[in-house]
Amino acid sequence: MTPILYCHPDSGFSYKVALALRLLGIEFEQRHVDIRSPRDRRSQEFRELAVHGEVPVLRIDDLVLCQSNVILDYLATRAGALDGDTVEQRLHVREWLSWEANRVSLNVAHSRYGRQFGHYDPAVLAWYDRRSLADLDRLQAQLAQTPWLAGEAPSIADVACSGYLFFTIEPWAEAAGFAMSTWPERWPAVQAWLDRLMALPGAQTPQALFAGHAIRY
Amino acid sequence: MTPILYCHPDSGFSYKVALALRLLGIEFEQRHVDIRSPRDRRSQEFRELAVHGEVPVLRIDDLVLCQSNVILDYLATRAGALDGDTVEQRLHVREWLSWEANRVSLNVAHSRYGRQFGHYDPAVLAWYDRRSLADLDRLQAQLAQTPWLAGEAPSIADVACSGYLFFTIEPWAEAAGFAMSTWPERWPAVQAWLDRLMALPGAQTPQALFAGHAIRY
Repeated sequence: MTPILYCHPDSGFSYKVALALRLLGIEFEQRHVDIRSPRDRRSQEFRELAVHGEVPVLRIDDLVLCQSNVILDYLATRAGALDGDTVEQRLHVREWLSWEANRVSLNVAHSRYGRQFGHYDPAVLAWYDRRSLADLDRLQAQLAQTPWLAGEAPSIADVACSGYLFFTIEPWAEAAGFAMSTWPERWPAVQAWLDRLMALPGAQTPQALFAGHAIRY
Repeated sequence: MTPILYCHPDSGFSYKVALALRLLGIEFEQRHVDIRSPRDRRSQEFRELAVHGEVPVLRIDDLVLCQSNVILDYLATRAGALDGDTVEQRLHVREWLSWEANRVSLNVAHSRYGRQFGHYDPAVLAWYDRRSLADLDRLQAQLAQTPWLAGEAPSIADVACSGYLFFTIEPWAEAAGFAMSTWPERWPAVQAWLDRLMALPGAQTPQALFAGHAIRY
């Protein structure tokens, strides 16, 4: 059966999984879940699949997987690709995934969500903006030393940590202080890394990857 | 060589790893890192080991591991214990680890840190308190259905998600609205789960586990 990705074009977490599938050359079907509706209003089928009620969910190999980093780990392990070659390297890849989970994706996602869709207190927005900026500095520091986050080759660490950064072309990012247009000067190694990532076979930005897919779910 | 855990008694992330080691019956040496000093002032030895400059770091099997959930994953896989029995169950355990990484530990940790050691804006504190309360509700919903988070047996999912909850006996938790003394009424299944966890062979609260260890690092 063709793998099915329950996802949404606005979700950087969905994009991370979709990008990994593209880079691994795995064909998949997109089913878009309406993430603007409350969790308990989403379809019965989706709610039964999604343990935490969130996108992404991936049906593959007779498994139903949720949590984007768990899915990335599964896909890299399954393919023996986009991963380290040794136990030590594989752990190092996962250290970056773990860093990402409570740092860059979370922070950028809130900086965006709080402006685009939410009504966050200005102090909370400022909090997330500061953390996002610190994360970009952290990425810059690493990528000034190695071409990919976990060393010499691309991995799911790069996929995970870049996911939400592609949304910083949107107008909200100007107010947050980290619009992508400013990157070549502020975080040149981060910009070069995103360019390298998008030059890999199969790579697509979220805007391209999710374009033209009708909501079917 | 005896495994060495670079840790601190105030760190719930350190406690998660220490508790897993105890439950797995792995003897280890504690070395306490002064987490009150800025990252760039911590010892050269620690900074060279810690990729992200943070505790915990575990030296084991000639590996240097950081990020608490990566360490938990490694320990459970290595021991074939505190884990699911099937691929599906093992993934389910890791879904809870992933949930924990940007939910309960992060939120409770900030509710605490912002009061105990930081100077957070009241709106930011209120934000984290609301999220922590939602997380306790989520845990209650699951634990009203299954005795352990990932089903019928204890796993690293329980270790991960409980780590910071043991600090809610401290005075800050009263102001945050989730002091543990209120749990039997509000979140009875969460309280019963913590009691079950502490009844497992080797289990110790952070207060007991880190007691009496002089700072050696």
